[in-house]
Amino acid sequence: MPKSNLDLINDCDSFPYDTFPSQQSAFTGYYTFLLPNDARPHGLLTSATVQSMPWTSDFRIDHSTKTVHLLPASHNPADLASSCTSALSNLITKAIQTNTFPILHGKHSEPYPILGAPKGPISIERFARSLFGLTARGAHLTVYTRTVHGLSIWVPRRSPTLFTYPHCLDTTVAGGVTTGEDPFTCIVREAAEEASLPEELVRTHARSCGVLSYMGLRDEARGGGGGEQGLVTPDLIYVFDLEVGEEVRLEPGDDEVEAFYLWDVETVRRGLAEGGFKTNSAVVMVDFLMRHGVVRPETEGDYVEIAMRMHRRLPFPVSARQVL
Amino acid sequence: MPKSNLDLINDCDSFPYDTFPSQQSAFTGYYTFLLPNDARPHGLLTSATVQSMPWTSDFRIDHSTKTVHLLPASHNPADLASSCTSALSNLITKAIQTNTFPILHGKHSEPYPILGAPKGPISIERFARSLFGLTARGAHLTVYTRTVHGLSIWVPRRSPTLFTYPHCLDTTVAGGVTTGEDPFTCIVREAAEEASLPEELVRTHARSCGVLSYMGLRDEARGGGGGEQGLVTPDLIYVFDLEVGEEVRLEPGDDEVEAFYLWDVETVRRGLAEGGFKTNSAVVMVDFLMRHGVVRPETEGDYVEIAMRMHRRLPFPVSARQVL
Repeated sequence: MPKSNLDLINDCDSFPYDTFPSQQSAFTGYYTFLLPNDARPHGLLTSATVQSMPWTSDFRIDHSTKTVHLLPASHNPADLASSCTSALSNLITKAIQTNTFPILHGKHSEPYPILGAPKGPISIERFARSLFGLTARGAHLTVYTRTVHGLSIWVPRRSPTLFTYPHCLDTTVAGGVTTGEDPFTCIVREAAEEASLPEELVRTHARSCGVLSYMGLRDEARGGGGGEQGLVTPDLIYVFDLEVGEEVRLEPGDDEVEAFYLWDVETVRRGLAEGGFKTNSAVVMVDFLMRHGVVRPETEGDYVEIAMRMHRRLPFPVSARQVL
Repeated sequence: MPKSNLDLINDCDSFPYDTFPSQQSAFTGYYTFLLPNDARPHGLLTSATVQSMPWTSDFRIDHSTKTVHLLPASHNPADLASSCTSALSNLITKAIQTNTFPILHGKHSEPYPILGAPKGPISIERFARSLFGLTARGAHLTVYTRTVHGLSIWVPRRSPTLFTYPHCLDTTVAGGVTTGEDPFTCIVREAAEEASLPEELVRTHARSCGVLSYMGLRDEARGGGGGEQGLVTPDLIYVFDLEVGEEVRLEPGDDEVEAFYLWDVETVRRGLAEGGFKTNSAVVMVDFLMRHGVVRPETEGDYVEIAMRMHRRLPFPVSARQVL
């Protein structure tokens, strides 16, 4: 059974919506994660995570209000953000040492910012963010060319040795945006590393085209490492387009890509329908096809629902000043 | 005080969000509008509307559940949709005759479809849809050209004699999508009528680029005709781009446009910041500037919130098969 475009969105934006008229909230059962001096929840933890985590004195767990409050024991108000980062780092180190969560893979990972932290950047390691249900940022670049036959898109096949989504189809270039990095800087770097694209070409011609958002619910069937169930994974994906001439050839620049294909739109759509793409890269491709007039309102019965769902309003702050 | 891009979104997407943790729902106080054999609410009516409406026997009002149910007294199941359309038409005729609602302007208007009606198209007149809080569809086309200095956009000034938003700046071409029409057909027609653009040019080169959604809350300050307060106005705006050469000149084709200007991006942004644009056309322009890399994540602090808000997930069905 081929996947519809909406099926591809459902695979990614899998956390239930609270629908109207009001019902039991999908958030019930989760603990909310709170930062100092900020009433806005930044993430959600499962009860299982709260029970297993080797909490330090920097965290106050309240089972009656179902909250996890980060309140570093020793902190200077002027230095609160770095105290929070240290507190999280100490906690994750302890969790890695005690081998508590398979999803941590027994090792440290890159620092990701907690979005909307009110007093400067607070970081948490990438592998740990799912345990706290914190929002992560990615940047995706779609490289395409116009031929006499229409659009053609550069589609990589991921290496069979990759930890996540081995051998799947993917966005031309993609990466996680780390603390202190902006999405464009990230994509310029990744384009050189993954696709051997000259920095100058990308910096001059890649076009910022928007940001997608969705909220995942991790279950075992979904895979991706770790046996944890019910983890919440809100994501932002900043999307960029780069039109190149037919003379430009993409070549793998590192061992993450097995090969690059230059595919026409019909071949790309077949890859989507067969479920061949990495889950969130499928959504990025559907957005690309909508922005380029390939997926259209006259022929896609789920057009409006797809557009709304791939720009989900997250229930967590995405900027320091955002009022939820 | 110049308006930020987020201010422009707030002007349009003004109905409150139900935020987490759950609180008193913004929907409380409204009556939901229900179609036969469909549990999904299609719209919201204020108590004032429910009290004043000269209801016919085709409608069942339940004050305990706060619902307005359309159940045409005489109907053949095979012909349910047209019975519903007739029931609404009879009701609106009565309301016009009794001069109950200023927003009806004492006259009939074009048929708009009730989106997601399960058994074929049910129509309601355009002026009446706000009374029921039903979702309306518009189509907007932005015509632009690339010069050596960058993008330039064709911006019309609305006629000073127009009923709504006289003398405001606007999207190049825009119109409401009526029953039985698709957004592209609408925009091809409007482009010829409003901007004297040849049908063949638009049909061949206009590109479908997505759909925006927001939910308005009509208050007196907002204007737009009629003294009714608290009406809910969910909208879908299908967006199209058309790139033309510098030799193409736009000229008003009817009396709705006073003049067309070819403006560079900075002039357009000044018009937005000064609040010079029609409310929803400002949102369409912000989306255009985001898709074209002018409004960017590195420099727009509200980038993510804007993207999420201009694709609001409406709490009403947008297709017959949508599960809310």
